[in-house]
Amino acid sequence: MLAWVKRIFGIKDGHFDRLDNRAFPTFAPGSVWLVGAGPGDPGLMSLHAFYALGQADVIVYDALVGEEILTYANPKAELHYAGKRGGKPSPKQNDISLKLIEWAKQNKRVLRLKGGDPFMFGRGGEESETLYNAGVKFRIVPGITAGIGGLAYAGIPATHRDTNQAVIFLTGHDESGNVPQAVDWHAVATAAPVIVMYMAVKHLPSIAQKLIDGGRDPEDKVGIVSNATLPHQTLMVTQLGVAGDFVQQNEVPTPAIVVVGAVVDYAKILNWQESQ
Amino acid sequence: MLAWVKRIFGIKDGHFDRLDNRAFPTFAPGSVWLVGAGPGDPGLMSLHAFYALGQADVIVYDALVGEEILTYANPKAELHYAGKRGGKPSPKQNDISLKLIEWAKQNKRVLRLKGGDPFMFGRGGEESETLYNAGVKFRIVPGITAGIGGLAYAGIPATHRDTNQAVIFLTGHDESGNVPQAVDWHAVATAAPVIVMYMAVKHLPSIAQKLIDGGRDPEDKVGIVSNATLPHQTLMVTQLGVAGDFVQQNEVPTPAIVVVGAVVDYAKILNWQESQ
Repeated sequence: MLAWVKRIFGIKDGHFDRLDNRAFPTFAPGSVWLVGAGPGDPGLMSLHAFYALGQADVIVYDALVGEEILTYANPKAELHYAGKRGGKPSPKQNDISLKLIEWAKQNKRVLRLKGGDPFMFGRGGEESETLYNAGVKFRIVPGITAGIGGLAYAGIPATHRDTNQAVIFLTGHDESGNVPQAVDWHAVATAAPVIVMYMAVKHLPSIAQKLIDGGRDPEDKVGIVSNATLPHQTLMVTQLGVAGDFVQQNEVPTPAIVVVGAVVDYAKILNWQESQ
Repeated sequence: MLAWVKRIFGIKDGHFDRLDNRAFPTFAPGSVWLVGAGPGDPGLMSLHAFYALGQADVIVYDALVGEEILTYANPKAELHYAGKRGGKPSPKQNDISLKLIEWAKQNKRVLRLKGGDPFMFGRGGEESETLYNAGVKFRIVPGITAGIGGLAYAGIPATHRDTNQAVIFLTGHDESGNVPQAVDWHAVATAAPVIVMYMAVKHLPSIAQKLIDGGRDPEDKVGIVSNATLPHQTLMVTQLGVAGDFVQQNEVPTPAIVVVGAVVDYAKILNWQESQ
């Protein structure tokens, strides 16, 4: 921005204003952007996500979107919550998609904001399919998924040369709220030294047993990162053989990411937040 | 920023300057930030990554960092390239770590910038371990990994409710450049309906055969996304049984992400870039 204006008025050179002259893609009226907000820390939002927040006319957000992130929204935007609230069921997926289409057809800029990444267990595939079928233009803005970025804030690398050349991510419950049925637990147990699970606290007693039955060592370390990247983030560490008891005997805050494998031990030395 | 200054001088409200008053974490002299730059599109950088680029005194970047991203660097920063160039070998990992430590001890703000995410096959674990051992303070700034965000730019969701409750990520070569030896290919073939591979083009003939031997259907779709999220991004689609021949008979640009599974078919309808 104009350097002399800054000099005269003593405006701090905070760097971000340099972005205002960049040619970012335009958020066109009548289109929907499906945007990942990242794991919670607003600083982990992408530049595209921040831009979209400022431009949107309507914002539909999930329970997993960090509260502070919404403070960056265009003050004139309509905000709609699309998660569970006070025990009431969340709006049906189809209802949300229909509203997105309706607003887009009213020529609004519609921002569908999701925690993490829209395509990592985020239902972004289904929503964009519905938009495509309705002839609504859309854009996908990926986000940092909690299964990678959330672990990093607890000092746990998803991969490390000394521990794993593969990492598997899975969801701890299916659409009806049960342990996923289509998962081959024996294969999951042995395919990768590191297993990262989303929404897995509730069914951890059952899942941990399935992994052990599938050949996984009961002494494998288990890390549970709750409220990842937020000020009240916690890390709890246990072992696979007792992980079921652990979550039944302790209050484990959710949302949480559960990680199984030797990478959990790195938290002892790489927990950079503790040393700040 | 000051609204009346903008009014008087007609400065465009580009939104990004709103960030200049936010209390982001300080990049302290004498510390190292290990930052993921994302898959290439500068708009996929996080706010923390952009802030770090503007503050750094020294920037050490990899081959996978998009060129345009470096145009956001503090103009006074020293830039050092830490990738392969013109057939010459890349600097040794240990040499890079020692330089990071040296600069930090000179009280500089040291930015170690990596493509994608520093902890997803990015050697960030090793580098931060070395920093810890040297007593240098560091911060990890996760990035969007190409295996998720790069696929999304080709219209391929890493997960979709109708196709997979698990996804496995692996590297297509180990530190000596060979097919990873520690991988149980039978388990990988069956653990998740979607397999995402980094740096796997060179060894794809061998890897595809191992997956088929491990029980994977030769008719499984294979998507190869090259230069993901950049203007010259390409998507090539083949099948597992002929994928080896495909990469030997066609010029496949690298870097590339290889994805195996039914999600590849979504590119036909979710390829939002084509419809812009």
